[in-house]
Amino acid sequence: MAIITLTTDFGYKDHFVGAIKGTILSDLPEVHVVDISHAVSPFNIQECAYILKNAYRTFPTGTVHIIGVDSELSAENQHIAAQVDGHYFVGANNGVISLITSEIAPEKVMEINIPNLNTSSFPVLDVFVQAACHISRGGKLEVIGKPFNDLKELREFEPRITNNGKSIVGNVIYIDNYGNVITNIQKSLFEAYRSGRDFEISARTNTMKTIHDSYNGIINYNFDRSQRKGPGDALALFNSAGYVELAIYKSDLNTVGGASTLLGLNYRDTVTINFL
Amino acid sequence: MAIITLTTDFGYKDHFVGAIKGTILSDLPEVHVVDISHAVSPFNIQECAYILKNAYRTFPTGTVHIIGVDSELSAENQHIAAQVDGHYFVGANNGVISLITSEIAPEKVMEINIPNLNTSSFPVLDVFVQAACHISRGGKLEVIGKPFNDLKELREFEPRITNNGKSIVGNVIYIDNYGNVITNIQKSLFEAYRSGRDFEISARTNTMKTIHDSYNGIINYNFDRSQRKGPGDALALFNSAGYVELAIYKSDLNTVGGASTLLGLNYRDTVTINFL
Amino acid sequence: MAIITLTTDFGYKDHFVGAIKGTILSDLPEVHVVDISHAVSPFNIQECAYILKNAYRTFPTGTVHIIGVDSELSAENQHIAAQVDGHYFVGANNGVISLITSEIAPEKVMEINIPNLNTSSFPVLDVFVQAACHISRGGKLEVIGKPFNDLKELREFEPRITNNGKSIVGNVIYIDNYGNVITNIQKSLFEAYRSGRDFEISARTNTMKTIHDSYNGIINYNFDRSQRKGPGDALALFNSAGYVELAIYKSDLNTVGGASTLLGLNYRDTVTINFL
Repeated sequence: MAIITLTTDFGYKDHFVGAIKGTILSDLPEVHVVDISHAVSPFNIQECAYILKNAYRTFPTGTVHIIGVDSELSAENQHIAAQVDGHYFVGANNGVISLITSEIAPEKVMEINIPNLNTSSFPVLDVFVQAACHISRGGKLEVIGKPFNDLKELREFEPRITNNGKSIVGNVIYIDNYGNVITNIQKSLFEAYRSGRDFEISARTNTMKTIHDSYNGIINYNFDRSQRKGPGDALALFNSAGYVELAIYKSDLNTVGGASTLLGLNYRDTVTINFL
Repeated sequence: MAIITLTTDFGYKDHFVGAIKGTILSDLPEVHVVDISHAVSPFNIQECAYILKNAYRTFPTGTVHIIGVDSELSAENQHIAAQVDGHYFVGANNGVISLITSEIAPEKVMEINIPNLNTSSFPVLDVFVQAACHISRGGKLEVIGKPFNDLKELREFEPRITNNGKSIVGNVIYIDNYGNVITNIQKSLFEAYRSGRDFEISARTNTMKTIHDSYNGIINYNFDRSQRKGPGDALALFNSAGYVELAIYKSDLNTVGGASTLLGLNYRDTVTINFL
Repeated sequence: MAIITLTTDFGYKDHFVGAIKGTILSDLPEVHVVDISHAVSPFNIQECAYILKNAYRTFPTGTVHIIGVDSELSAENQHIAAQVDGHYFVGANNGVISLITSEIAPEKVMEINIPNLNTSSFPVLDVFVQAACHISRGGKLEVIGKPFNDLKELREFEPRITNNGKSIVGNVIYIDNYGNVITNIQKSLFEAYRSGRDFEISARTNTMKTIHDSYNGIINYNFDRSQRKGPGDALALFNSAGYVELAIYKSDLNTVGGASTLLGLNYRDTVTINFL
C-alpha cells in the first residue's frame, strides 16, 4: 500500500487535515496517510525540517511526504516536488527542502505546474495533494512540472567553528515535548574537532563536562536512589537523532519543568562547546 | 475500503478515541478510520459544524461521519442517522446536523433505535459506532431506526441584512490554529448584496476596505521587503471555505499573536460590512 | 490486517511518533497502526495505565500494544513483552503492565532480549517496534526473550477500606479532557461494601449523595430549563469505565471550568465515601 505522510503547521483542531485526508482517499482508496506532525510552530521552517528530517528516513523509499508549512504560491515561493534519497517531497521553495537535504543531493527537483488547478489560499489541498497522489500512483515528476534549479537555501542555522578550532558555537534549533533542548551540533562535527580533548559545554550560566549516550547515563546504579543523580538533574547527551541535546532527567513541562524552562534556553539561543 | 470519520470534543489524551477505533476495527477489520478533529471545544455545536461541513465533502460518497459532541441521549436529544449529499452522519439531534446541511436537504433522517444496546454515559461508543459499522457494511438505515421529522435547527448563527440592504451584520463563528477569525458571512451572500458598491468591514476598532483571495494578496511583490506589507499586517480574505476571514499575515498565537488576540475578536463577536 | 497500537508520552509535535510509524510500515506494509494516546503526562505510569486499560479491550485479541512511557533500559527497568487476556503488551517493567493487568493474570511475561539491537535513548523505536512487528507477524515470544518473573507492582494507588467498613478512601487517578475527575473507586468495590446503606461522597469541601449512571442523570426533564439542574452543576457518576467520577455537567476547562478546577481537585487528592 502506498504511503503519503503529512507534516504541517495546521494544528489538530481545524478542518484542514481532515479535508486533505478526504481528498487523498477519494483519489487513492488504498493508501496509508500518516501524520508526522501537525504541530509545527506556524511558518517555522527550521522546526519543520528538524521533524521531517528525523522521521522520513524510517519510511520505505517511494513514500511521498507533503510539507504544509508556508506554502502559499508567489514568485518568491514556488511549489516544488523533489526526489531525494529515494523519497519524494512536495512543498514550497521556502528553504525547508534544502534543510532536509543538507547532507544529500536531491536526485531531481521540479517546479509544480498542473494546468487548470485552482490556486487558492489552501494550496496544500489544491496543489500538493494532487501532485502527491500523482506520484503515489507511479506517475512521473515530469508530467506535473518542469526542472527547477533555484532551491532556496537557509544556511544561517549551521554551527560555527571559532577560536582556532577550540570552540564550536551552536544554537538551539528545537525544543521537544519534554522541554529538552536540541542544538544544531551533530555528533559527527563534535568528534571531528574534538581530537581527544576534554571539553566544557556552556549554555547561559550552565556548564557540563560530559555528553552521555542515553538519558539514564547520568545515573550510577551502584548508588542508592537517595545518593545518586535522578529526576530533576540536568545532562547533555547525543540524542537518537545524532544531535547534542541538553535535558533534564524525567522532566515534565507542566509540573517540574524541563531543560528549556529550568536552564532558561529558547529557540535560537547559543550553546558553546569549548575544547580544553 | 470503507471510511468512517470521527469529529468529537474528546481531546487527544483520554482513552475515548482509542476505544472507538478498537471497537470499529473489531467489527470491520478493513476500514479507514479517519480523525477529522477531536479538539472541538466541549459541547460547541457551531464549531463542530464548521469543521465537519468543510471536511466531509472531500470524502467519497458513502462515507460515514460519526459526530461525538453533546451526544447523551435524552427526550430532547435523540440519536439520529442522516443521509445527506450521499454521505451518512451519525450523531445527536442537538442542531449540528442541521447546521451542516443548512444548504442541502437531507435525503433521509432516522432516529436510531438499536434493541438491547446499553445506553451508557459513552453513547458514541455504545450506539454511534454500532450504527456506523452497520451503515459501512451496506446495511439499511431502516434496520437501525425509524423515520424522524424533528431535526433540531439552530438559526441564531446566520448573518443579518440591515439598514435597507446597506449592511451585513455577521458574527465570529470560528477561530483557527493561526488565530485567524472566521465570520459567518459567505462570499455568495456578500456578492448577492454588494451590487458593485465599495464597502468597509468593521470589527471593533478596526476597518478594512479590501477582501483578498489569498493571504499574500496584501503583498505587492513589486516593492522591496522593507517597503511592502508582510508578517504582522492585518487583512480580510475569502478563505478556502468561502467565508469572510480576518487574518494576520504569518501569525503565530504563541509568539507574535494572531487576529483573534491582536484585533481583540472572540467567538460570537460582531463583524459588520457596510456598503458605501 | 494486524493491529499495533501506540500509547506514549511523546506528544504530537516531535518526530518520535512519525519515526515509529515509518519503521513499522517499512517492516509490515499491511498493518493498522492506531494511536491510543501520545498525551500521557511525561513519565506518568498511572495515567498511562488508566488510558490503556480502558482502551485495549475494545481491540481484537492478538493486537499488539506498544507502551512508550519511561522506557529506557536499566537493570531496574527491563524491557518486557507480556501476553494478557489474548493481547500483547510491549513496554518497560516500570509498573504499567501490572496496573493494566491488576485484575487479570498475564498468560506469559518475557524479558526482551534481541541480539545486536542498538539500545539507544529511543528504545521504543529501536527495541519495542522490532518486538511488536515480530509478534504481529505471528512470531513466538520465546524468540525475542526469556521468561521473566519479576513484574514490578505499583500498589499504592488502591482505595482503602477504613472505619470498620464504613468508609472507602480513594484518590484521584485521572483528570479527563472535560476536567472531570476520575477516582480509583470502582463500582464493584462500592457495591460490595454498600449493603444498601445511604452514603455521602466527600471531596475537599464538597459533598454529594447520589451517584448517577450518566451525566444527564442530574437533570429532571419534567421541569423547565430555568428550574432544573444543568450546565455548571456538579454530579457524581459511575463512568463508562466503571469508576466513580466527579463531573460538572457540560464543563469546558477553557471557559467555564471543569470539576478539577471548580471543585479544586488534583491528581492524587483524596475522595472519601462514607456509608451512613
